Amino acid sequence: MLLKLMSVTFDPAKKDRGTPPKMGSHEIISFLVKGQQESASKITLPGYDPACYLCPGNKRAQGDTNPKYTKTFVFVNDYSAVKEAQEEYKQEADPKDLSSLLLRAESVTGKCYVLTFSPNHNLTLADLPPSEILPVIQAWTQIYTAHLSPKSPLASVSQPTTLAPTGIDISAPNAQHTWMQIFENKGAAMGCSNPHPHGQIWTTTGLPEEALEELGQLTKYRHEHSGSSLLEDYAKLEMEKEERVVFQNATFLVVCPWWATWPFEVMILSKKHKRALVDLNDTEKLDFAEAIVEVTRRYDNLFQTSFPYSSGIHQAPLEGTDEEIEASHLHMHFYPPLLRSATVRKFLVGYELMAEPQRDITPEQAAARLRDCGGTLYRKLL
Amino acid sequence: MLLKLMSVTFDPAKKDRGTPPKMGSHEIISFLVKGQQESASKITLPGYDPACYLCPGNKRAQGDTNPKYTKTFVFVNDYSAVKEAQEEYKQEADPKDLSSLLLRAESVTGKCYVLTFSPNHNLTLADLPPSEILPVIQAWTQIYTAHLSPKSPLASVSQPTTLAPTGIDISAPNAQHTWMQIFENKGAAMGCSNPHPHGQIWTTTGLPEEALEELGQLTKYRHEHSGSSLLEDYAKLEMEKEERVVFQNATFLVVCPWWATWPFEVMILSKKHKRALVDLNDTEKLDFAEAIVEVTRRYDNLFQTSFPYSSGIHQAPLEGTDEEIEASHLHMHFYPPLLRSATVRKFLVGYELMAEPQRDITPEQAAARLRDCGGTLYRKLL
Ligand SMILES: O=P(O)(O)O[C@H]1O[C@H](CO)[C@@H](O)[C@H](O)[C@H]1O
Ligand SMILES: O=P(O)(O)O[C@H]1O[C@H](CO)[C@@H](O)[C@H](O)[C@H]1O
Repeated sequence: MLLKLMSVTFDPAKKDRGTPPKMGSHEIISFLVKGQQESASKITLPGYDPACYLCPGNKRAQGDTNPKYTKTFVFVNDYSAVKEAQEEYKQEADPKDLSSLLLRAESVTGKCYVLTFSPNHNLTLADLPPSEILPVIQAWTQIYTAHLSPKSPLASVSQPTTLAPTGIDISAPNAQHTWMQIFENKGAAMGCSNPHPHGQIWTTTGLPEEALEELGQLTKYRHEHSGSSLLEDYAKLEMEKEERVVFQNATFLVVCPWWATWPFEVMILSKKHKRALVDLNDTEKLDFAEAIVEVTRRYDNLFQTSFPYSSGIHQAPLEGTDEEIEASHLHMHFYPPLLRSATVRKFLVGYELMAEPQRDITPEQAAARLRDCGGTLYRKLL
Repeated sequence: MLLKLMSVTFDPAKKDRGTPPKMGSHEIISFLVKGQQESASKITLPGYDPACYLCPGNKRAQGDTNPKYTKTFVFVNDYSAVKEAQEEYKQEADPKDLSSLLLRAESVTGKCYVLTFSPNHNLTLADLPPSEILPVIQAWTQIYTAHLSPKSPLASVSQPTTLAPTGIDISAPNAQHTWMQIFENKGAAMGCSNPHPHGQIWTTTGLPEEALEELGQLTKYRHEHSGSSLLEDYAKLEMEKEERVVFQNATFLVVCPWWATWPFEVMILSKKHKRALVDLNDTEKLDFAEAIVEVTRRYDNLFQTSFPYSSGIHQAPLEGTDEEIEASHLHMHFYPPLLRSATVRKFLVGYELMAEPQRDITPEQAAARLRDCGGTLYRKLL
């Protein structure tokens, strides 16, 4: 069975295209060893920026004023890409009309939230202790819970979290949305224009392509393996093999996945089958926070820079069949673009876009490097 | 039937996510109209650079010296990502061994060529008249022909082209390769480190993912529509609708495709069913050259800059079933990252990587803008 979780990563069978897969080899290829060490980036940002639309007490684009929040803060994006209301559009496919067959379209509605991770303008997740990331995870859980279909088997599990994110009313929208995508774009290299620590949460009617593909694979595996979770089995295998493991605690495993496309791609996955954030108790949430800080801190230490990445959480859809929800397995992807140093990145371009990804280092090499980057953050914690 | 040609573009049904698809609307959204005009980029490069490894007569990384070529020049990449020889690796899937099921890998061999488009260091495809792009298309055809499986129905069609690319022996390698990916990464934004006009050609054993997906859709359509070509039918439809057409000549159609992901994504496709470059006669090749120059010149004119992009040709595999080869339809994709100006780009990051692409402008808007950018190049042709 082909573990094809992300279309962007494609065929894990083509692992390490160009050099024979050396399982167990932790040898660092020469350019990595000899790679120029860039000078460490310095924190030059203030803790509070009067011009930042995310800082506590500041004005936003549409005139709203942020509260003087002390932990996290959530609001509806002032420039939402997906809108709550939308002209209905759906064309019926008519076998006699080529246009209706080839040019299909349908409208999507949804909601785009922004969630700040800290009131402090110049901190990142890598700067925070797990206890200060916990409120972020609690906020994610609360927003997820508020959007869950009342018919979902998860609706009964979810309890009000102990901490509410300061911010707007996040109670369920009028329409039932199907998918919630929690993600963070960090760093200018990943299209992020504001360094204030924040992520986004988009909900939509209908499953996006990645979710559809992933859920399809998870459901198929569960069906063919008498109810097992593909990712629980995968986690077990990686714990045995060890070579791609970066970090682990009681609840979570951090690996450079077998099918990694980005040079330092990382995945956090729950060791036991957890369908969604609501399946985690507060101890487990703290373990998740620790895993997140272990990834982001190692990233920063690797090239002594504030490491750019896009990260995102995949979990059960807000609404789906019982089978889809039971097959879902909570995990988080990190896609970082850097390859050799703070300034040398990997481009996923021509061959990658037209044919398929080709990788420059193996996940085993990446994992070995990230294992060696543990400990305190290279720059002083403020 | 869902026109899903590229996994990177995903579901055309989700066209124009966030705003209702307005077919026929050519209205340019306000930020595009008001968008700041960046100052035109100036040509500051010399026509010959003694430090360039692609200029005629210069030394390359492994010590080889380039001939004093006058049109095109092809050589095997000094840092090939795919190698001709490789340790055999293929693990049999054993249902009782989880590892063999989940961690699948196989080795890939192949060959990576570099092809210069002109001896002139400071020209780009946009600067060349079609007659000077013709030798590039002839070189692509010749290299494709040299790698064709003798068993392919295309082997009999292909005639020696009138012009041979100056360069190394490109006769078939020892192993039969399955796929040839012709592509160009143009501009630093697309990972290109040398401005000397050039592209790459990689051949591999096995079909890469995009090819697999595309061939699957083309073959399926052909089967379900009594032998018709999906892309010929699509071209007909676009010629009727007109709103996404950028340019056309007797042989080729240039459209912003219905399912475009990149803001100014463009596709060149043959109006009639052509399986591969070898199906084009010299007049048709010249029409292809004209289409290429019409795309790249309009791109440059759009933001008065040397427009970055990745482009690539999809055509019949070098080796495949007769059905796969007959279903193939020659076309060329252009994926450019710019959105609003020479310096404001579109990032395909968080939501795009974790869920699915969302677009900022519609293909109809993009096509209208590109239609208006025709004529001579904004900068003086050297
Ligand atoms: O082959 P080049 O020009 O050295 O490298 C460029 O194209 C390759 C193929 O698309 C990519 O894998 C590289 O990331 C990119 O920098
Ligand atoms: O929402 P933002 O931060 O304005 O925009 C960023 O994230 C979006 C979602 O991944 C992307 O579509 C944009 O291209 C990117 O610049």
